[in-house]
Amino acid sequence: MAVKLNEEERKSKLKPLLQEAKWSMVDGRDAIKKTFTFTDFNQAWGWMNQVALAGEKIDHHPEWFNVYNRVEVTWSTHDCSGLSLKDIKMATFCDKTHKTS
Amino acid sequence: MAVKLNEEERKSKLKPLLQEAKWSMVDGRDAIKKTFTFTDFNQAWGWMNQVALAGEKIDHHPEWFNVYNRVEVTWSTHDCSGLSLKDIKMATFCDKTHKTS
Amino acid sequence: MAVKLNEEERKSKLKPLLQEAKWSMVDGRDAIKKTFTFTDFNQAWGWMNQVALAGEKIDHHPEWFNVYNRVEVTWSTHDCSGLSLKDIKMATFCDKTHKTS
Amino acid sequence: MAVKLNEEERKSKLKPLLQEAKWSMVDGRDAIKKTFTFTDFNQAWGWMNQVALAGEKIDHHPEWFNVYNRVEVTWSTHDCSGLSLKDIKMATFCDKTHKTS
Repeated sequence: MAVKLNEEERKSKLKPLLQEAKWSMVDGRDAIKKTFTFTDFNQAWGWMNQVALAGEKIDHHPEWFNVYNRVEVTWSTHDCSGLSLKDIKMATFCDKTHKTS
Repeated sequence: MAVKLNEEERKSKLKPLLQEAKWSMVDGRDAIKKTFTFTDFNQAWGWMNQVALAGEKIDHHPEWFNVYNRVEVTWSTHDCSGLSLKDIKMATFCDKTHKTS
Repeated sequence: MAVKLNEEERKSKLKPLLQEAKWSMVDGRDAIKKTFTFTDFNQAWGWMNQVALAGEKIDHHPEWFNVYNRVEVTWSTHDCSGLSLKDIKMATFCDKTHKTS
Repeated sequence: MAVKLNEEERKSKLKPLLQEAKWSMVDGRDAIKKTFTFTDFNQAWGWMNQVALAGEKIDHHPEWFNVYNRVEVTWSTHDCSGLSLKDIKMATFCDKTHKTS
């Protein structure tokens, strides 16, 4: 069962995502979002498949919107109605695998 | 270059999608949308890959939002700022490949 | 760490796959294989994505060959150099999600 | 309808793939093959999805074998029983999108 990030985790893990990696808080929710852009649909879709596999592996799935080369991703954890370590993990994975080509 | 559906095509091809296949018009746009649900993310993602391939084949891509087993799909054609025969084709493909298991 | 199927498991779980579900033993290996065919590449690829996700979830990956609408799948477990319960699980998943359309 | 590469095309387009990009001829066939390796299955699968989309777009599909982080790809054209410009195109796409991370 996932639990909400505590204060220490918000400082050490969430803050860098918001300040350096350009994730932002979703209005009115304990959730983070970011828009990723790619060269074309082909590249976006390859990346989405990587995120899908990584999410399925830890049973944690994104809320995401895609049109052509653009993917808007939101992470939050249903179980605890807010951000958990799983969201930090997946957001970090998104950044690591995103290629800005 | 895609062209907008004419009156005859709207009657013969669009109307059945709206009346029988439960697609609906998007407010304020010449576009159609429908929500598809699946057993789980695994099944949703297999289907999304089929739609992605079919779209790429005719260079026509969805606007879609996914969370877990739910996929909200919108079709419209950028080229002509409205519905074209490509949207009819892709909406029909979505319905044909959707399995309500 | 995966362990090889014992005699009881081979009788109760492996035998039905070989006798009813048309899996067969690979020559010279403790492994099973089966060829799946689909309508076209689109359908094959949707299915392969389902198998990929299910495999990644339990950290167990197929050996598979694909050309167009045909997929030859082999299951065996590296860890124990032979068939384990993970292979039974994945073979069963393959059969369940395969649509012979 | 695809046609076999002519002598000029073999010199200008096929030779660089064989000499610089490490593709090799398949024994007894007018076909080329190459093995691609990745960090893990996740990365291999993202790439395979890119190749799948690009192939479907020009109606040209690979013969490929995958196990975990390794993908063995063969290109040849059924239509003309040998190598065509489509194979050159897809082999080049494979190289371009392959990341040796």
